[in-house]
Amino acid sequence: MFAIDADDVRYAATMLAGVAVRTPLLEYAALNEIAGRRVLVKFEGAQHTGSFKFRGAYNRLARIEGAAKAAGVVAWSSGNHAQGVAAAARLLGMPALIVMPADAPAIKKANTKALGAEIVLYDRLSESREEIAAALAAERGAIQVPPFNDPFIIAGQGTVGLEILQQAEDAKAALGQVLVCCGGGGLTAGVATLVKDVNPSIDVYSVEPSAFDDTARSLRSGQREIVAKGASSICDALLTPTPGELTFPINQALLSGGLAVSDEQVKAAMRFAFETLKLVIEPGGAVALAAVLHGLAPATTLATAVVVSGANVDPALYAAILSEITSAG
Amino acid sequence: MFAIDADDVRYAATMLAGVAVRTPLLEYAALNEIAGRRVLVKFEGAQHTGSFKFRGAYNRLARIEGAAKAAGVVAWSSGNHAQGVAAAARLLGMPALIVMPADAPAIKKANTKALGAEIVLYDRLSESREEIAAALAAERGAIQVPPFNDPFIIAGQGTVGLEILQQAEDAKAALGQVLVCCGGGGLTAGVATLVKDVNPSIDVYSVEPSAFDDTARSLRSGQREIVAKGASSICDALLTPTPGELTFPINQALLSGGLAVSDEQVKAAMRFAFETLKLVIEPGGAVALAAVLHGLAPATTLATAVVVSGANVDPALYAAILSEITSAG
Repeated sequence: MFAIDADDVRYAATMLAGVAVRTPLLEYAALNEIAGRRVLVKFEGAQHTGSFKFRGAYNRLARIEGAAKAAGVVAWSSGNHAQGVAAAARLLGMPALIVMPADAPAIKKANTKALGAEIVLYDRLSESREEIAAALAAERGAIQVPPFNDPFIIAGQGTVGLEILQQAEDAKAALGQVLVCCGGGGLTAGVATLVKDVNPSIDVYSVEPSAFDDTARSLRSGQREIVAKGASSICDALLTPTPGELTFPINQALLSGGLAVSDEQVKAAMRFAFETLKLVIEPGGAVALAAVLHGLAPATTLATAVVVSGANVDPALYAAILSEITSAG
Repeated sequence: MFAIDADDVRYAATMLAGVAVRTPLLEYAALNEIAGRRVLVKFEGAQHTGSFKFRGAYNRLARIEGAAKAAGVVAWSSGNHAQGVAAAARLLGMPALIVMPADAPAIKKANTKALGAEIVLYDRLSESREEIAAALAAERGAIQVPPFNDPFIIAGQGTVGLEILQQAEDAKAALGQVLVCCGGGGLTAGVATLVKDVNPSIDVYSVEPSAFDDTARSLRSGQREIVAKGASSICDALLTPTPGELTFPINQALLSGGLAVSDEQVKAAMRFAFETLKLVIEPGGAVALAAVLHGLAPATTLATAVVVSGANVDPALYAAILSEITSAG
């Protein structure tokens, strides 16, 4: 019925064992105090390439064999998926070509190139990344690796949820809810699939930028809603116009709801992470933390796990966001 | 013969169990590649108050009972020890008065105050913090808590070493050396005491800012050397003029040597931590990482553990250091 089940996530975990980083689940007394509950921070900034995307990419690429492996892969991405695919391809000895928007953060373009991938830039407003990627893939006989709408990708991202459950148990924390940053919904769907299978009483929520709250609205309306034209957000990793075909049915069946945060709340969460958690977090990676910090997470007497999905932020933007503290006092 | 032995560290660990954060020991493929060895990063930025100092402070304060507890404690510190003492005092329900230099980072002063401590400022150039603290302690019948020259403080800091050994074993890493940020030498002495007791073949090195390399020079000369008048460094946490009376004999007996890094190397390490480790690190907390990144750690075929001792850095300074990347490239 769904694109994946929990055993696909468990199998992905065996593929990723010793390859992906088992990122830390961190707890801070100062954050617990603000949130009025135990908050466990799953820090995917410590993952290879600075985001969870390596998990799904490796789980997908590791299934490609023979002549297809030699032809390599093509992916389109604003940055984190690009780096994840490039790193997985390098580890597996496959060529990778990445179609990136010309206005993607410089750090994401530079890191993707440094990982040995070939990059083709496109104009986000006038060109279609899907068409460019499809043409390039056809030309080379390469396999396209979509950022979220793929069963192996979803299952790979779901390993974040498996680790959260194991690490929460190690920390003797009874989880009541998991908040997941949501763009196309692959991470959310993967985490929800695993978490609800193990413990259906844990609530899983997606968290999005308020201008890109397509998943939240889709969960309410029951159909895949589309983001308004011209919408913008600093959360460059989450600028997906509509939930994925494969991810939405999963999220619709399993999520307890969708939350949304403003860009100002995201920036405040990034500053809090700098000041108190001592973690670098990119805008899109900070939305779930922002929801907890701003009282948007539904009440629970149990612990809340918050996924910090990535940390690839341009130093100039980061410095500017930090400087808002300085100028504010 | 020495101020502490390894069992004092083990006992401190039982005092700190469930109170201090068991901070993560992180590993990054990108860092291993640069260093040409496995590098394990002990991230004390995730400790209460953003540095390891809470460990020693709590281990000291928890031994104070009765009337002495009601009279509270007095400490002098440029910041991290202040916050550690303030947080420990709050947890234990004791008053704390902290003597801080007027030019300490604003974030450290603000955080110390936020933890409920009373603050007295002094002029670093014209006044003696020791005399001010002694007078205030006498006046109140309060106990002075020195930043490093105290057996309980040294033993508490040593729990960092205990965790490193346990976590390296969990990570199946055979440790060849441990690099420790060094100011007065309390953290270094505590870590060395525990590590050398468990495995004498592991080399422990202190790492200092090159303008404050008193421990490195003292290790070479065999006596406690003093930093040149007017020396300066961005590593505000490590501006100690000479090794401690209690810490130096331990370090002299146990260390394999003392390393030193320039402020430019420290800044580069902070930028690397931002870009690749996704960790916020303060200047003084980055010296051991800087040594590994700049090829200053002695050769080993085994793994190197690097202590990141703290992460309390003013956002304006941090933004300025990050901006040097932007302007450079």
